[in-house]
Amino acid sequence: MSALDAAIAFAEGLFDELRANTTDAPGITRAAYGTGEEFAHALVRAAARELDLVEATDAAGNLYLTLAGTAPQLPGWIIGSHMDSVPHGGNYDGAAGVLAGLSVAHALRREGRRPERNLTVMVIRAEESTWFPVSYLGSRAAFGRLPREALEACRADTGLTLREHMQRLVFDPAAVARGEAFLDPAGLRGFIEVHIEQGPVLERADAPLGLVTGIAGSFRYREARCLGAYGHSGAVPRAYRQDAVLGFADLVAALETRWDGLEREGLTATITFGEVATDPTQHAFSKVPGEVGFCLDVRSASPEVLERIHAELLADAGVIAQRRGVRFEFGARTGSTPALLDPALRGQLAQAARRMGLRAIEMPSGAGHDTATFAAQGVPASLIFVRNQNGSHNPLEAMRMEDFAAAVHLLLAFLSTPGD
Amino acid sequence: MSALDAAIAFAEGLFDELRANTTDAPGITRAAYGTGEEFAHALVRAAARELDLVEATDAAGNLYLTLAGTAPQLPGWIIGSHMDSVPHGGNYDGAAGVLAGLSVAHALRREGRRPERNLTVMVIRAEESTWFPVSYLGSRAAFGRLPREALEACRADTGLTLREHMQRLVFDPAAVARGEAFLDPAGLRGFIEVHIEQGPVLERADAPLGLVTGIAGSFRYREARCLGAYGHSGAVPRAYRQDAVLGFADLVAALETRWDGLEREGLTATITFGEVATDPTQHAFSKVPGEVGFCLDVRSASPEVLERIHAELLADAGVIAQRRGVRFEFGARTGSTPALLDPALRGQLAQAARRMGLRAIEMPSGAGHDTATFAAQGVPASLIFVRNQNGSHNPLEAMRMEDFAAAVHLLLAFLSTPGD
Repeated sequence: MSALDAAIAFAEGLFDELRANTTDAPGITRAAYGTGEEFAHALVRAAARELDLVEATDAAGNLYLTLAGTAPQLPGWIIGSHMDSVPHGGNYDGAAGVLAGLSVAHALRREGRRPERNLTVMVIRAEESTWFPVSYLGSRAAFGRLPREALEACRADTGLTLREHMQRLVFDPAAVARGEAFLDPAGLRGFIEVHIEQGPVLERADAPLGLVTGIAGSFRYREARCLGAYGHSGAVPRAYRQDAVLGFADLVAALETRWDGLEREGLTATITFGEVATDPTQHAFSKVPGEVGFCLDVRSASPEVLERIHAELLADAGVIAQRRGVRFEFGARTGSTPALLDPALRGQLAQAARRMGLRAIEMPSGAGHDTATFAAQGVPASLIFVRNQNGSHNPLEAMRMEDFAAAVHLLLAFLSTPGD
Repeated sequence: MSALDAAIAFAEGLFDELRANTTDAPGITRAAYGTGEEFAHALVRAAARELDLVEATDAAGNLYLTLAGTAPQLPGWIIGSHMDSVPHGGNYDGAAGVLAGLSVAHALRREGRRPERNLTVMVIRAEESTWFPVSYLGSRAAFGRLPREALEACRADTGLTLREHMQRLVFDPAAVARGEAFLDPAGLRGFIEVHIEQGPVLERADAPLGLVTGIAGSFRYREARCLGAYGHSGAVPRAYRQDAVLGFADLVAALETRWDGLEREGLTATITFGEVATDPTQHAFSKVPGEVGFCLDVRSASPEVLERIHAELLADAGVIAQRRGVRFEFGARTGSTPALLDPALRGQLAQAARRMGLRAIEMPSGAGHDTATFAAQGVPASLIFVRNQNGSHNPLEAMRMEDFAAAVHLLLAFLSTPGD
């Protein structure tokens, strides 16, 4: 068995254990700072001990597993991703990147090779902002860049703050609040994240891997509401209605028209109303709806496009409110900044792929990833997408092990290239 | 104190007791065959005993409180309405009609007058179809016309069937199932229902009373769904999305366009999506929504208009499904038939109002009322609207006692007119 095959078999065993222990039918659930993420970190720690990696944990609970290089004084490489998942998500989102890093370490060990530079597998906390309404929580904390107020954000299911969740796991939220950094950009040669694509682009392009050019940023309203007036569905004539569902549908249509406009100009974004609900304590099939709550998630790789859509949203909402006799309350805005990824590092990876005869296409990432934090800190950063099936953030998410193996193979080849 | 003033004071006391005992903040809740409706029936029975009315109950639990006339062999009058309410509704919807009947009996007693014909105050069960998905449940049962399968309908909150709820209150669902009638259309001179308008028309027309020309029928889908596919809100490009919220918003817009078309032709209807929700066990702000549940309530006084909108709904849903890659499942259709009300009886009431100098305008009813059942049975039937404020089916619903008194006054004057 080749070193690569042995590493992939090792990773496959870990994927199986992960699935078996974090299943929450349908799909799997690994809550950030919750049971599922804790199991995943424990599993990875145990695997790292088998590989004799040096273990460290920072104040936020990010885990660092290092294979010492022959020149440990040089800035090292980090390969990392996250282990948390959305509720009822799939097994590979995040985990594939961590296990890709471990697989590289496994193969190097098996071949008896030590890299020149330190190679650290980083297991990042809390990437899925469905739990805490904060983007890139773990990776920003690693650089001491998590805003202090993020510690007071509540986890969606428990209602406990991030601070409380960190305390329960005996991490150090006070150090996080003080902005103590575990990572120093100057000490890093680069960061590479392997992640399933989460979309159908590679599948349709018949390519196992993608090399990401940039990561979309976002603005989000998670607790937006359209407010009208309740009324009898038969007795209130049309002219007197203040129908919140009609107001909401207008806003959906208006933003779709804006999306059309962007695309005509060759600009890209995604606009998603992922959650919608009338108030179950007040609504009835026989009432004109007086309130609708909704979430809005807008993403683009361009900060200008994000701000343009935001301005259009507010303008459209104003016009609709006037016409419908409704009112929009958007609540707190959250989101993240778009990131352009290092072209030199991407070029080196592309070259390595070409030499191996691996098809790896360049593409943007509509989804956010911790790689964006490293890029924002000035660390040369790259994101490698692995082809996957059935999307992600859902129980049907899938990935072929041969595509995962292609990513590990590319990393091994790249890290063996002289000059890195 | 005049007999009318005394009757209104009596009714006001009953309204207060009702409110005090069925408050469920915000507003009041009187579930059909539930605690609130039971309290209301008990209160009305006790009041009827004070007035020496003869009490009877039918197999479905409808209550009949009769003031015997001087010619009891003649077909009698019924004045009636319902005592149940929507969840968190107002105190007057339904109850005003029952207490108007009791007030008439109170005034006649106080004046020592007996009417020629029997006068029965009917307290009808379960008019609000928010509890059981069945229209005019109580009044249809009174005529032995409730479809047998309605007994298997489940109450929205308890999940128990109508049959079970009737059994718990020691009524006779088997007799209801057999179609045993308590009322015979031939034995009735007519039916008059007093009801708050539930809309703003009388308030804006500055008229205390309305005389209803016809009652809208309806078709309803209470468990409709738009089904698409979940996906990552950033990673799935627009062309690959099957966004259920966008499909739903399209359907809302399409039916509004159809509504515009009807109105341009001078036709009337109401179209309401009263409940909307993505699936809380599957949705996330960062997911393309794969499913939206919704309710649709369409009402019109014209059966042709109802069928036209229904056909348009199916056609539009087909086009949207094709364009969006979504699928609509409408589930079971329920609804009711429109009713034209007796012009002769309405004319007599209008004449009585004119003689009294009371402003009472003719208008259609967009909301359904038990009066429709009596009309469908060939009983001369009339519906008198009382001006109200803030709509109905909501906690802010209001009614001025002087407007209620105008309705009672009109009934008293009408029933005293020779020839009835």
